[in-house]
Amino acid sequence: MSYGGYDAPRYGSRGVPGGAGGFAMGRQAGAPPGADPMLWEWFSAVDIDRSGYISAGELQRALINGDWTPFDLDTVKLLMNMFDTDRSGTIGFNEFSGLWKYIKDWQGVFRHFDRDRSGSIDGGELADALRQFGYNLSPQLLMLLERKYGLKGSGPASGPSSFPGAGGSNGITFDRFVRACVVVKQITEAFARLDSDRDGWVQINYEQFMRTVLELP
Amino acid sequence: MSYGGYDAPRYGSRGVPGGAGGFAMGRQAGAPPGADPMLWEWFSAVDIDRSGYISAGELQRALINGDWTPFDLDTVKLLMNMFDTDRSGTIGFNEFSGLWKYIKDWQGVFRHFDRDRSGSIDGGELADALRQFGYNLSPQLLMLLERKYGLKGSGPASGPSSFPGAGGSNGITFDRFVRACVVVKQITEAFARLDSDRDGWVQINYEQFMRTVLELP
Repeated sequence: MSYGGYDAPRYGSRGVPGGAGGFAMGRQAGAPPGADPMLWEWFSAVDIDRSGYISAGELQRALINGDWTPFDLDTVKLLMNMFDTDRSGTIGFNEFSGLWKYIKDWQGVFRHFDRDRSGSIDGGELADALRQFGYNLSPQLLMLLERKYGLKGSGPASGPSSFPGAGGSNGITFDRFVRACVVVKQITEAFARLDSDRDGWVQINYEQFMRTVLELP
Repeated sequence: MSYGGYDAPRYGSRGVPGGAGGFAMGRQAGAPPGADPMLWEWFSAVDIDRSGYISAGELQRALINGDWTPFDLDTVKLLMNMFDTDRSGTIGFNEFSGLWKYIKDWQGVFRHFDRDRSGSIDGGELADALRQFGYNLSPQLLMLLERKYGLKGSGPASGPSSFPGAGGSNGITFDRFVRACVVVKQITEAFARLDSDRDGWVQINYEQFMRTVLELP
């Protein structure tokens, strides 16, 4: 039994302007010897208190979506957890360069799948992305993903390729697109770990079940 | 086998000023006949586009934490899903009165458990709240909850009653406190539904597993 998978975004930036998310800030100078000056500029700009380390709060203030909304804290923490390799609770300059590249790669993925250049991902575009990543999810799961990571609170269920309904657009912003894809990856990996005999079923108790859920971003 | 439980916040507002979250806005007039004028004022102020209905975006703009940060979108959508009883994707005035009371009740709960009046809930306070609600979670699960819903991205694991570490405070804001409690309740209920023979173990496949996770707020 296979649950699909991907390790990192496979789509490089295509140089399409606008639409995705990223860092929004001014310029600062003073790169340390050996450091990529451009990267150091970004790092210094994010490190508002000049501590030499970036906190979750600083990262959240620096990251914005294509529609100028801030990244949700869960996505910021997902990124922190991924790149804070020394578990200090903050991101140093070396860790930042990995985080920077990761976000740039996801920007490329986002622009690639945002085919209608709307600046957000709809249900059909999310389904395409996940299929490309190797996940063949049922229409019901795709609908749940769109509902969970889209902007709309609720509203009539109309399938993964639904048009915007009475409650307005249900587009998925850049931050929540990254989170949705990483959640699918991690749920799939968690399930595969539990399914040691690979028969597609797992036996799980309350403690394991809740732990698995709480470890997701 | 019992997994604990609660239906609604049991602690009324104790009138302690500050600290929790809630609505932040000006006053407007023009209550329709029969409506609570105060409630209508709040509703009109949230309904920025004067459509007569509140969207997820309008609700997010209206809800702020005690530290003036906006509610995270997942908590806003949790509230929308709970009170949008006609599944319109928006909140009408009648639905708003339920939502309003629910938030007021949670403010009381938050203030009750924020014993040090810090304006945020720490790991120990969250453990107290969940215990009071009937959930006796293991120290490991409490630590995961604090890590998932607190502000800090990562950092050293030091148990549910940890002091703020090098990465700064890991306090849980009002919005994420509500979400944490509702998630624990819903995970517990989802597990109980799957555990039809009540032996504390469930047999679950990939589709059910992912559906269960994606239906959580």
